[in-house]
Amino acid sequence: MILIFTGNGKGKTTAALGHAVRALGYGKKVLMIQFVKGQWQSGEELFNPKSYSGGKLCIIKTGRGFVKIAGDKLPISIHKKAAEEALKLTEKEIKSKKWDLVILDEINVAVKLNLIKASDVLKIINKFRESPRLVPRKSAFPNLILTGRGAPKSFMKIADLVTEMKEIKHPFQKGIPAKKGIDF
Amino acid sequence: MILIFTGNGKGKTTAALGHAVRALGYGKKVLMIQFVKGQWQSGEELFNPKSYSGGKLCIIKTGRGFVKIAGDKLPISIHKKAAEEALKLTEKEIKSKKWDLVILDEINVAVKLNLIKASDVLKIINKFRESPRLVPRKSAFPNLILTGRGAPKSFMKIADLVTEMKEIKHPFQKGIPAKKGIDF
Repeated sequence: MILIFTGNGKGKTTAALGHAVRALGYGKKVLMIQFVKGQWQSGEELFNPKSYSGGKLCIIKTGRGFVKIAGDKLPISIHKKAAEEALKLTEKEIKSKKWDLVILDEINVAVKLNLIKASDVLKIINKFRESPRLVPRKSAFPNLILTGRGAPKSFMKIADLVTEMKEIKHPFQKGIPAKKGIDF
Repeated sequence: MILIFTGNGKGKTTAALGHAVRALGYGKKVLMIQFVKGQWQSGEELFNPKSYSGGKLCIIKTGRGFVKIAGDKLPISIHKKAAEEALKLTEKEIKSKKWDLVILDEINVAVKLNLIKASDVLKIINKFRESPRLVPRKSAFPNLILTGRGAPKSFMKIADLVTEMKEIKHPFQKGIPAKKGIDF
């Protein structure tokens, strides 16, 4: 199954995290690769320690933080390099057969920002999906969740499920800043 | 903060669960009261054991399963009683001051099905929110998440954040049944 959470509303990464919880409940192994996230520590990372997840949830932050917002002054080439490395890691980890669920967090945004190409992402997905013998395990191919606003049409086309998280009301509208434990 | 996840798309309960993970990461205590859920065991419940959450995540299933769908033949009065008890429990638990985050899962649906009244839910919320001394702790009032399609307007009015999860594509459309670890 390939799931996409997109749209401008809150709840995309958190829904992916919720899926992680569900999968962990069934004793599955979950990998989350975060493509474009702030440098600060988030609740999900603090949750990560082995005492909680028994080592079955792994969160890897690969991005170099927000791109061209929130004071970012890094050259775009640095962001590109980070995203390309994240994609290489994605391929390696899917190939490793270690994971039942792989969450590619904010990968839609990485594509939208031209850090990586949608076609390169699809190449990896199709490579393993169409050749189950490359990933010879129960389910042949892990469940994938792709998050981030502005999901490319080509991703939606191959997905089994797409939900658009639509912002109806948000405290940022009222000038209330991001809140620990809620937004990160 | 009061957050609402509504709409017909997938990701409402899972987003709430993701928030739970984030809160647990910060050492907070989380209660999820499930108002209208199937009788089967879900991944989030299996995740519940103390070994994982250190006893800081508690999930209470109060509903009597789906109402008037999926073969439900229970008289509506039984569902009503269960939802009313869930609401009483909600009040007791908020008053107990034990929780930093309280998730009222599918409470919007319970209102939509006329199992409980929106005004009774609001009465409880307003009672504790407007009288912080009744809940004398750091944040005076826990963060609340209300999930379920068809959120009443009166809930949206008092919420700080509302996201509509909009179904763009769903495997049920293609006749694929609910899948363990993904849908429950």
